Formats: sequence, C-alpha cells, structure tokens
Amino acid sequence: MLPRTYDNQVCSIARTLETMGDRWTMLVIRDAFLGVRRFEDFQRDLGVARNVLTDRLARLVNDGVLERHRYQEKPERFEYRLTEKGIDLWPVLVSLMKWGDRYAAPGGPPTLITHRGCGGAVDERFRCVECGADVDARSSEARPGPAAPRRWPSAVL
Amino acid sequence: MLPRTYDNQVCSIARTLETMGDRWTMLVIRDAFLGVRRFEDFQRDLGVARNVLTDRLARLVNDGVLERHRYQEKPERFEYRLTEKGIDLWPVLVSLMKWGDRYAAPGGPPTLITHRGCGGAVDERFRCVECGADVDARSSEARPGPAAPRRWPSAVL
Repeated sequence: MLPRTYDNQVCSIARTLETMGDRWTMLVIRDAFLGVRRFEDFQRDLGVARNVLTDRLARLVNDGVLERHRYQEKPERFEYRLTEKGIDLWPVLVSLMKWGDRYAAPGGPPTLITHRGCGGAVDERFRCVECGADVDARSSEARPGPAAPRRWPSAVL
Repeated sequence: MLPRTYDNQVCSIARTLETMGDRWTMLVIRDAFLGVRRFEDFQRDLGVARNVLTDRLARLVNDGVLERHRYQEKPERFEYRLTEKGIDLWPVLVSLMKWGDRYAAPGGPPTLITHRGCGGAVDERFRCVECGADVDARSSEARPGPAAPRRWPSAVL
C-alpha cells in the first residue's frame, strides 16, 4: 500500500486520492454505485482478499464515503451504503469510465450510463445527448453496454 | 503495488485504473498538466523515491500517456510530455479536484481551474460559470486558489 497521506502536497487531487486512491477502493465504490451492499457480494465480484476488502471498507466508512447499516440482528450483519459524500464521487467514476471506453474498450463499452427515464446516453460532460439535460448520480442509471459480460454486473444479479 | 490487471473485470473503470490507478501515477499526471516535464522536477515536487518515479514514468510512456522527448544530447537527457491520450485524462483530474475542494479543502481550493482568456471559474461539468462555454484541457488554465501554498505549483516556479 502506498503512503496514506501526502502532507507536503497542498492539492485537492492529492487529498481525494488519500480517500480513494487505490484501485481496490475505487472498484469498491464502483460496485456500491451498481447496488452492491454486502461484504460477500463485494468479495465475490472483486475477487479481492478478504482482509484487504475489510480494510478498504473500514477506511471508506471512516472517511464518510460509506455508511454501515445493520440489516440482521442474530447474527449481526451489516451492509454498506454510499453517503452523500460518496455519491458525489459519481463524476470521478464516470470520467474514469469514459476514458476507459475510449482507450481500453476495443469491443465497445461494457457499461452505458443513461439518463433515467429519457434513456439518452450521458456524455463526458454528464449531459444527456438526447434531451441536453444535466445528469447526475440520481438521474442516471447504468446499463449493460455492447461489450458487457454475460454476468453484468456480476454481483447484483 | 497492487495487481496491475483485473482480468476478471470487464469494466472501463478497471481498465483505466490499470493505467493510472495508483496515487503516485495520478500525481505525476497532475504535475504534467501543470507543466512539469523533467525527472528532477517531478522528483522534487512529489518527494517520491527515484526508483518509484522511474517505474511510474516508464509505465506511463509504455501506456501512451506520456511521450519521452530528448532535449539534450551530451549527456542525453529526456523530458516527458502528455500525449493526446494523456490530455484526455483532464476530466478525471478535474473531477478528483472538485471533490477534494468540496470535502477536503477547509481553507478553500488550493488551485483554481479557469477558462483561458475569459477567466471564469470552471464548474464540475467543465463549463465556464461566466460565459457558459464548454471548457477542456486546452481552453483552461490552472491558477493558485485561496489556499495555495506559497510555492504553488512548486515544481514549475
């Protein structure tokens, strides 16, 4: 793991990366946007070591990006949900996705972000290409794209 | 270092993170956007170990995000410049910055992105708040914000 802080960097990019700047963390957040909430589902989708996942979830809760909710009492079981602070990471994830669609998706996009209701594609400025509306996390939805794997999105099926 | 590839992930976010998903890499790219080009300047600004920096620069060249240009013959010296593929990472960096400005910049933004010429601030949809124009990497510039350190941006002064 890289250093957690960049104390000599007065920079909002560096600060954001302290919260979400490792790749497992970003994929955990991506899965949370796709509706994954439970440890076992994150673990199965990501194939990440359990101790690593435990650590990343704890950090995200500590940073206020995820909230822990008890959904069962005996035995106690928790699920993880995005907070408002977490939902505000949506433009970061969409920007990462758009770049990947352009440069690393020879078979086409695995996932499409569309304007909920309208169905128009969302462009790299988070705008609906059909109706021109500004789209955000709540007014968008993710759908399987032309290159979607059969098990898209694996963890929530 | 985390695993380089996520072969079981059919996802443009995962693919992008294969290229830029470690924090030093993202800060190298940020510095490149701020005009840093030379190994010594990256090293001084980031305070990163030289072998780590060498590795990250080589990966970014290999991935086509940076290009290596010889600027001196005897002894041979090279600088690193963003390619078109690298410049297309601008929305990712701006999105990371905007989130950090919101949640991790209590003294205000260290850096402002403004619409070149017009001077208007650029919002989280990469739009100029003054004239409404769509702004991109080439039509924007970075300026010291209210919380800028005295040595902003350290490496290019």
